[in-house]
Amino acid sequence: MEPTKLSDTDTEKVSHIDIDDNSDTGHDLGHELLDALALEDHSDMVTALESLHPADFSDQLEELTAEEREELVRRVPELISGEILAELEDEVVETILPLIPAEQLATALKTIDNDDATQIVEEMEDAQREDVLDALEPFDRAALEASLAFDDETIGRLMQREFVAAPTFWTVGDTIDHMRTTGEELPELFFNIYIVDTAFKPIGYIPVSKLMRFERPVTLESVMDEIIVTIPQDMDQEEAAYLFEKYNLISAPVVDPDGRLVGMMTVDDIIEIIQDENKEDILALAGVSDAGLTDTALTTVKSRAPWLFVNLITAVLASLVIAQFDYAISEIVALAVLMPIVASMGGNAGTQALAVAVRALTERDLTSRTAWRAIRREALAALFIGIIFAVVLAIIAFLWFGDTQLAMVAFVAMIINHVFAGIAGVSVPLILKHYGADPAVASSVFVTTVTDVVGFFAFLGFAAAMLL
Amino acid sequence: MEPTKLSDTDTEKVSHIDIDDNSDTGHDLGHELLDALALEDHSDMVTALESLHPADFSDQLEELTAEEREELVRRVPELISGEILAELEDEVVETILPLIPAEQLATALKTIDNDDATQIVEEMEDAQREDVLDALEPFDRAALEASLAFDDETIGRLMQREFVAAPTFWTVGDTIDHMRTTGEELPELFFNIYIVDTAFKPIGYIPVSKLMRFERPVTLESVMDEIIVTIPQDMDQEEAAYLFEKYNLISAPVVDPDGRLVGMMTVDDIIEIIQDENKEDILALAGVSDAGLTDTALTTVKSRAPWLFVNLITAVLASLVIAQFDYAISEIVALAVLMPIVASMGGNAGTQALAVAVRALTERDLTSRTAWRAIRREALAALFIGIIFAVVLAIIAFLWFGDTQLAMVAFVAMIINHVFAGIAGVSVPLILKHYGADPAVASSVFVTTVTDVVGFFAFLGFAAAMLL
Repeated sequence: MEPTKLSDTDTEKVSHIDIDDNSDTGHDLGHELLDALALEDHSDMVTALESLHPADFSDQLEELTAEEREELVRRVPELISGEILAELEDEVVETILPLIPAEQLATALKTIDNDDATQIVEEMEDAQREDVLDALEPFDRAALEASLAFDDETIGRLMQREFVAAPTFWTVGDTIDHMRTTGEELPELFFNIYIVDTAFKPIGYIPVSKLMRFERPVTLESVMDEIIVTIPQDMDQEEAAYLFEKYNLISAPVVDPDGRLVGMMTVDDIIEIIQDENKEDILALAGVSDAGLTDTALTTVKSRAPWLFVNLITAVLASLVIAQFDYAISEIVALAVLMPIVASMGGNAGTQALAVAVRALTERDLTSRTAWRAIRREALAALFIGIIFAVVLAIIAFLWFGDTQLAMVAFVAMIINHVFAGIAGVSVPLILKHYGADPAVASSVFVTTVTDVVGFFAFLGFAAAMLL
Repeated sequence: MEPTKLSDTDTEKVSHIDIDDNSDTGHDLGHELLDALALEDHSDMVTALESLHPADFSDQLEELTAEEREELVRRVPELISGEILAELEDEVVETILPLIPAEQLATALKTIDNDDATQIVEEMEDAQREDVLDALEPFDRAALEASLAFDDETIGRLMQREFVAAPTFWTVGDTIDHMRTTGEELPELFFNIYIVDTAFKPIGYIPVSKLMRFERPVTLESVMDEIIVTIPQDMDQEEAAYLFEKYNLISAPVVDPDGRLVGMMTVDDIIEIIQDENKEDILALAGVSDAGLTDTALTTVKSRAPWLFVNLITAVLASLVIAQFDYAISEIVALAVLMPIVASMGGNAGTQALAVAVRALTERDLTSRTAWRAIRREALAALFIGIIFAVVLAIIAFLWFGDTQLAMVAFVAMIINHVFAGIAGVSVPLILKHYGADPAVASSVFVTTVTDVVGFFAFLGFAAAMLL
């Protein structure tokens, strides 16, 4: 993509945003899109929308219903600029792309950086993608195709192919002159200048804010910092995000298998990755495959039914345990009253341990070195917690049913289930991780299966042995 | 804090890191800290640790047991630099601060930016804080005290008080000359130069990477961009993080109540805030108050027992519902076998809807305008899902117990519980949010209480009415 003076044109459109904590979107611009939709005349509509920042425009587009959105795009496709496409969620981009002519899309893509353009092209149907790529300059087309050749969620797909590199012998003055001459061809924003050797391997960098502190004759080599992290182009996005967080990076060079500089990742793209990964974790723990605001009821069903089905199987498994002791329940119905308490407490305690372990794995605080310590700590904490709540439940059972032996059964079952819950909560994600699976996916189901089965078995089994 | 040439001294310590996907920490430096601890001689130990990047050093410190860590700090307190303190988790900082002399801490704080220094001083005991503040230069002390005067989690506490501001009439050349002259006094890293009016109010900014594209005589006013977001110093950190994400900001000016520029926030600090808020959400949904790797079993108990206690009360509530129908259970023991399935399916479906809603609230996709649409969608999806699994459960019940009426009861109860689960899952966080509470905290307990009570009541109630 050719870099442009985006910020200049941008400036004119930006109205200063008043921060208002109470509004839903953090400011109060009104809802220009709905107002604009009511206008008959296109030019009035365009005027009405001109005051919006692309980020606000896209937020408002996302809040419209699918029908309203499509009507707007059909009436004034020219309003959907490259920046707005870059701001919109993928699911929304997918639905409006077919409404925009290929020529306009090609123009829109030229105004944004290569990494943003790649994400938009990804969402196109094959036929439209061909048309759009054909409408691009050969250089831009080649850059896009190079990105698309990489796997989804790898750095090669996400990186920016525009960057500033300089040879070691350049001086500060050479570098400033180069940037003044190149001007428009530079990336829209960049933070580091990479210093490369003759094989184009990055050997150092200098932050732009540091470059300016030196006099013109100083050579880059004498003031450059050593590169801390180099990112291989086939690295997974999650791994790259971790390195950015750990080393507080603002920008990092991306290299090909020969170690040659081919692109850069910047921190603004990393934030998106971090948010995606966090969303994935929180939804996976709750057993949802994916969800967006634009989901219909039907896609909601599709994203949730699979894990509910697995849950049904495990619930039946737990019920089979209960069925083994149906004779005990029909003798002492109090067992049916108390057994869900034991199972529920174990389930909750297991979920707590699980969430802590998954989060610690995400932050790499839980490693193979600290795993045993974590498991021991969970088991010990679970024993404490189990004893506390076993005492409480025993008292409740005694006051309720006036039966000391029943209270004893509840006491023992509660402790056993808590200990199993704590150990399962921390071990299941560790085991999944060890075998290369995502520790958040499926672990809830495993853990609650353990706590249900153990809870019912311990409680009803002891009851059958002691009370009958 | 006086900015320093951190990066220069840094460079010498940095060994290039080889990325290794399979190791736990993304690289393979070995475990120098443990090796170093085995050395008798302090100077040998210092030599052994010199090759470590502060981020790796702090990671290894965190992996040590509390005893190993304390021994290391006692033997070579001089190894704990300002940068390492800035990298360590708060809980670890808290435990090692008492082991370091106040004079050394004051020196360490001088080498890092004001925002990082504030976070370290926060963790000190009052007496030590006084000693350290006394040992600082008056200017540095004043800056730290100004930050500490703000509430925790507000921008005033977190912002960097060093920034580069320029009047409108300055040229590109003036600005470059200013930076060359100021040199050491500049913030370690910065991305924007803020242009201020005579009242020191920010009226524009220019990214450093853009500044360099213009010739020396160009005035800043003619090329500056309008400021998109200005952050009030008392804004909550979560709100600021949202603005950074939404507008893809790298840096934003912070202003006092009169609109005067008093500091800046940069994106690297925002990443920490985002991760903290995400961690809070995922743990709150699982009912954990807080957790860190350094927790002992006892702190683990403290952070988890409160929500388990609430869960115990709600579980007893659900049991009271079962107890109302004990006569039905003693007649038909199959009810005790099947009822946990209905409750468990509802609980899981509710948790799914809840996680999606909490995440959508975090991302501000779920607003007052889209709330009704989301509730309708959840209710409709829940009805679909309820019908699907009601059919499956009815078949299971019929095959298992050969009782058509029992199958019918399971069928109806399953649908009712799913619909309640879906509506509760999305409404509970919305209601909490509406009343100013954190939508993630406590919502799981509310939702599962609804699904347990409704599940047991619908299933056993219908059974009692139809079967007896």
